[in-house]
Amino acid sequence: MTRDPLRLADLVARFGGELVGDPEVRVTRLATLRGAGPGDLSFMTHAKYRPELGATRAAAVILPESERDATALPRIVCRDPYVYFARVASLLSPPPRIAPGIATTAVVSPDAEIAPSASIGQGCVIERGARIGDDVALGPGCFLGEDVTIGPGSRLHARVTVYPRCVLGARTIVHSGVVIGADGFGFAPDGGRWLKIPQTGRVVVGDDVEIGANTTIDRGALDDTVIEEGVKLDNQIQIGHNCRIGAHTAVAGCTGIAGSTTIGRHCMIGGAAMISGHLEIGDRVVIGGGTWVTRSIEAAGTYLSVIPATESREWRRTVALLRGLERMSDKLRELERRLAELEQQR
Amino acid sequence: MTRDPLRLADLVARFGGELVGDPEVRVTRLATLRGAGPGDLSFMTHAKYRPELGATRAAAVILPESERDATALPRIVCRDPYVYFARVASLLSPPPRIAPGIATTAVVSPDAEIAPSASIGQGCVIERGARIGDDVALGPGCFLGEDVTIGPGSRLHARVTVYPRCVLGARTIVHSGVVIGADGFGFAPDGGRWLKIPQTGRVVVGDDVEIGANTTIDRGALDDTVIEEGVKLDNQIQIGHNCRIGAHTAVAGCTGIAGSTTIGRHCMIGGAAMISGHLEIGDRVVIGGGTWVTRSIEAAGTYLSVIPATESREWRRTVALLRGLERMSDKLRELERRLAELEQQR
Amino acid sequence: MTRDPLRLADLVARFGGELVGDPEVRVTRLATLRGAGPGDLSFMTHAKYRPELGATRAAAVILPESERDATALPRIVCRDPYVYFARVASLLSPPPRIAPGIATTAVVSPDAEIAPSASIGQGCVIERGARIGDDVALGPGCFLGEDVTIGPGSRLHARVTVYPRCVLGARTIVHSGVVIGADGFGFAPDGGRWLKIPQTGRVVVGDDVEIGANTTIDRGALDDTVIEEGVKLDNQIQIGHNCRIGAHTAVAGCTGIAGSTTIGRHCMIGGAAMISGHLEIGDRVVIGGGTWVTRSIEAAGTYLSVIPATESREWRRTVALLRGLERMSDKLRELERRLAELEQQR
Repeated sequence: MTRDPLRLADLVARFGGELVGDPEVRVTRLATLRGAGPGDLSFMTHAKYRPELGATRAAAVILPESERDATALPRIVCRDPYVYFARVASLLSPPPRIAPGIATTAVVSPDAEIAPSASIGQGCVIERGARIGDDVALGPGCFLGEDVTIGPGSRLHARVTVYPRCVLGARTIVHSGVVIGADGFGFAPDGGRWLKIPQTGRVVVGDDVEIGANTTIDRGALDDTVIEEGVKLDNQIQIGHNCRIGAHTAVAGCTGIAGSTTIGRHCMIGGAAMISGHLEIGDRVVIGGGTWVTRSIEAAGTYLSVIPATESREWRRTVALLRGLERMSDKLRELERRLAELEQQR
Repeated sequence: MTRDPLRLADLVARFGGELVGDPEVRVTRLATLRGAGPGDLSFMTHAKYRPELGATRAAAVILPESERDATALPRIVCRDPYVYFARVASLLSPPPRIAPGIATTAVVSPDAEIAPSASIGQGCVIERGARIGDDVALGPGCFLGEDVTIGPGSRLHARVTVYPRCVLGARTIVHSGVVIGADGFGFAPDGGRWLKIPQTGRVVVGDDVEIGANTTIDRGALDDTVIEEGVKLDNQIQIGHNCRIGAHTAVAGCTGIAGSTTIGRHCMIGGAAMISGHLEIGDRVVIGGGTWVTRSIEAAGTYLSVIPATESREWRRTVALLRGLERMSDKLRELERRLAELEQQR
Repeated sequence: MTRDPLRLADLVARFGGELVGDPEVRVTRLATLRGAGPGDLSFMTHAKYRPELGATRAAAVILPESERDATALPRIVCRDPYVYFARVASLLSPPPRIAPGIATTAVVSPDAEIAPSASIGQGCVIERGARIGDDVALGPGCFLGEDVTIGPGSRLHARVTVYPRCVLGARTIVHSGVVIGADGFGFAPDGGRWLKIPQTGRVVVGDDVEIGANTTIDRGALDDTVIEEGVKLDNQIQIGHNCRIGAHTAVAGCTGIAGSTTIGRHCMIGGAAMISGHLEIGDRVVIGGGTWVTRSIEAAGTYLSVIPATESREWRRTVALLRGLERMSDKLRELERRLAELEQQR
């Protein structure tokens, strides 16, 4: 997964930034300040890591402009070291090359269209009408139902399931165990039993979306569930039917979004947040981890509802006091009345 | 997934309701009021959607009796439009026909009993002693362990895993990534290490149960884990060993139910609810989304514990005040004492 | 899964304890006090189960020393009946024997090293450089990426995915649907888009670890994600990149641990707990179910933050009072001021 050593001069020529120190220094690998050894390039995003910078064994480091002189090591000084690091990392650790072709144990319908440059892993099953774009790589054991479309340059890791008629854009990355397009949870109560509502919509995923391991996105009931371009979904997220997630929104792991909720663009949703159904969340809204959203949110801003952990005896007292809040409130009103009486008497 | 156009007259003949307008109008598809176009049948469940009813391009609509005259469109008037819609949807979008037989790359033990009408997808693995009923459809890549039983008419989507000896009833629907019968989380502490307790019970799933994508149901430790008939489980639910979920209970996504808990019949459990182990929840109990149930609940009713999201600064103040509740309570008691003193002095 | 009947005398010879009653009594199966029938061995851990002990039909029971005389049944009296039960259970229900060899539909790279005693299930795909130790059993449909190592005696159930270069120790048990080594959730914000950070670390899992169904453990960004020996992870847990979970820590289902958090040894984490990123949790810390940990915890002890469910009207009042806490606090301060004024006037 690594390649030939790169000169610092080459990096700066390619990605910009100011080079301080020997331009001929070569790096082969990226590493944290603590984990770096000879030949490694590291990076520091914030002055608080100066002690680790002082102790690092890295061959060179990427620094923000404010930390230009915080070390004597060869260094690249730039506006945003984390972004710079990301660009260098992509160069040093390119995705593995894939061998075009259909693996021997894959089962591909003759009525599916597979680009010649695509790579179909062992044990994949692709139904009729599916269309697989250029340079797509499917890991082993993927299942694509009838009429599924996968855009060019996408990579599905092992064991991804895409139900019929769902659409993935270009350059999507889908991790193992993801299920796209299972039936939404739609049942009508009918005399003590649940009557299943057929789920006939699709899931439509835009370009440059990444979907983490074991995440599930349900197909729409009648309309589609839509994940717009550039959305990043972490692991074990559940997205209900008919949701729409706006472009470039990032959602951390274990979050659940109930059906028919629309989330705006450029939002950030913390881990294990839960968002009720049929809500509208605006653009650039930040939802804290573990927060429960039960009403629509229009204004950009940060929203929370989680209570941090406390030592158990203290917490039990707090819960008891919370339960007694009504009594406290009544008592307060009574004291106020008695106090007003005393005040009048004078 | 759609079929020949249906006349409104045919629908009313089949499902009842009052037909107002041209009985010869034909519909091919169901759609939301907003999404509908010519040839589509839509429905309205509540007066609040009248603006959308006014703007719909649907060919006909299903309405509740109270909204009989809310439109001039051809319409079917009935008691419960959602149930009516569900019935029509099942007629218009029947499940895909399956081709009986065992796919070429499936591996089926000669000691398994497979009904001739069953369809076994590519790459399925079925161990000895398994029994697959009439008209069962297994999607690609399912694994059924030794002595698993799948009742007639059941449909397992791609990549479902059923561990040995588990039993599924008739007409069950199981979505991709579901794991039924993995070991329960049972360990005895033994001198700083954990001693595994063999999990020798089964999972027994009743008729007409639906299980959502990536849900997990653990096998019992000694006795069985039981999901009774008609239960509907959404995606990414975790059910611990030795639980029993009563008939016709519906559980929304991301919910966790810890081991040995019994839930009654006709309950509704909201998304991401968490229910502790060894509890008894009665019939017709409603648990709100995100609610934590730590004690048994006998009486039918609705139970909550979730705090809705607030703007972050306000929430931080609330948390600080919550932490200071004991001081507030002490202060209140002190004021009361001082006030009583003043009152006595007069 | 069961074997020949065992004499009580044999059990005591093997596992210790005091035998009271007929040593020739034979047992074939373990069962709960309620579920037991003739030929079954049951156990009681606590005096509160005496009514069930009185009614059991078990052939013999395992009891704690304090309950030595609570029954007239043949019995084994010992210090810890649950541990004793676990040991007997392992003897009565040994893991199924596996047949060494590579199944016909498995696809194994010629450049992988597979121990002759290992069993590779149908449809498994094993990439080059992988090393599979002695007596390893892979269920059907597992995928092991390049250079994956699986230690001796490990058992991966059906459909486990291990991304390239990850390492599992000896005697690990991994349940179906688990994904080990997917990319961590690492993106740098770059002008309104998210730039992917290549995730080049590994997941390293120690000996005797068990991982529950559909759990996901992400690979490290640069360094490794580490699960130390003896850790037990339940189902549907999400562990972010660069976490370290200390030896013999147990984590219950649905828990999420965000990236770069270190958890100590011998901790117990309740179900659906959520732990923020970049924290340090000490040894022997107990986190209650559903608790949100947002700060590092040094001291051993129990930490909570969950509010138990209440009847909905009462809960709604509590939430309203919580929202009004600031007003209550202001009011209290005002009353104190007015009271002090009155007190001074006298």
